[in-house]
Amino acid sequence: MDISAVNSLSCEDFVDIFGNIVEKCPLVAAALWSQRPFSTLEHMEVAAAEFIDSLPVPGKEGILRCHPDLASRGLHSGNLTPESTEEQREAGLASLELGEAERLRLLNLQYKRRFGFPFVICARLNDKATIERRLAERMANERARELQVAVDEVKKICGLRLQKLVATASRL
Amino acid sequence: MDISAVNSLSCEDFVDIFGNIVEKCPLVAAALWSQRPFSTLEHMEVAAAEFIDSLPVPGKEGILRCHPDLASRGLHSGNLTPESTEEQREAGLASLELGEAERLRLLNLQYKRRFGFPFVICARLNDKATIERRLAERMANERARELQVAVDEVKKICGLRLQKLVATASRL
Repeated sequence: MDISAVNSLSCEDFVDIFGNIVEKCPLVAAALWSQRPFSTLEHMEVAAAEFIDSLPVPGKEGILRCHPDLASRGLHSGNLTPESTEEQREAGLASLELGEAERLRLLNLQYKRRFGFPFVICARLNDKATIERRLAERMANERARELQVAVDEVKKICGLRLQKLVATASRL
Repeated sequence: MDISAVNSLSCEDFVDIFGNIVEKCPLVAAALWSQRPFSTLEHMEVAAAEFIDSLPVPGKEGILRCHPDLASRGLHSGNLTPESTEEQREAGLASLELGEAERLRLLNLQYKRRFGFPFVICARLNDKATIERRLAERMANERARELQVAVDEVKKICGLRLQKLVATASRL
């Protein structure tokens, strides 16, 4: 990986490549471009996380609301982004048994009613069992605390997507 | 228009309908959902503008960078959002003479080099002559001042898109 190639990208190419490091929020990549040059990939990850942290509360909630429900029907109908589809598949969420799928659907619904945003977790760092357990546990969090936990998961997803893109993007 | 219908939309439906009130930034609509209930359409417009104003500088720059170049090739190849295509067409940007198109292309390029984001103007409130004039004039602005001017244009575009959606959305 060559961070100087990343640093020399035009804004358009940068957003083209990194536009989905935060699900359906190309604004984050477009904002990150302001922070070039990056000295390392880690520097880039930290800058993305700092930008997310710098958003006002409705902005953080907005980011969460741009995420799909985990294990939703969209996973089978091809309506999700390629990144989300792959991450959820690898966590086993595309091959749930009927009972597992129904439990997750109900938990997602309860969570969304309670917090006003969908449950977000870094699927790459979990499997279907830990995802269901964490969903049930996090439901008990106080609202401000849960927003922080969820945003931290967004940052993990973002970091892993960035790492993968820098390792594999053909234009880099 | 019925603001109570807007207020009763689920988050998913709200982002589905209002996701592009700021070009390619569904995050803005998703954040706006936090501010319901709205008492009037004007209240909704003000809340959207306040959210945009509340973003840190890189976030404002990021919003601008999610906009296409005005009168770019994308206008003819169907690569733009329906909203941007319609607004630019109505301002006469889809039927420029060769010389006009080349002048705008060069001005856009110079502007982007100077400020690090594309030139944004509310096309609905301008025509091709005022757009070219404003582009040349704004190039002379100091950077912080120009960011503010450009963000104010984003808010005008956002307000007009909101008004149109609330007036016409079949689900409202």
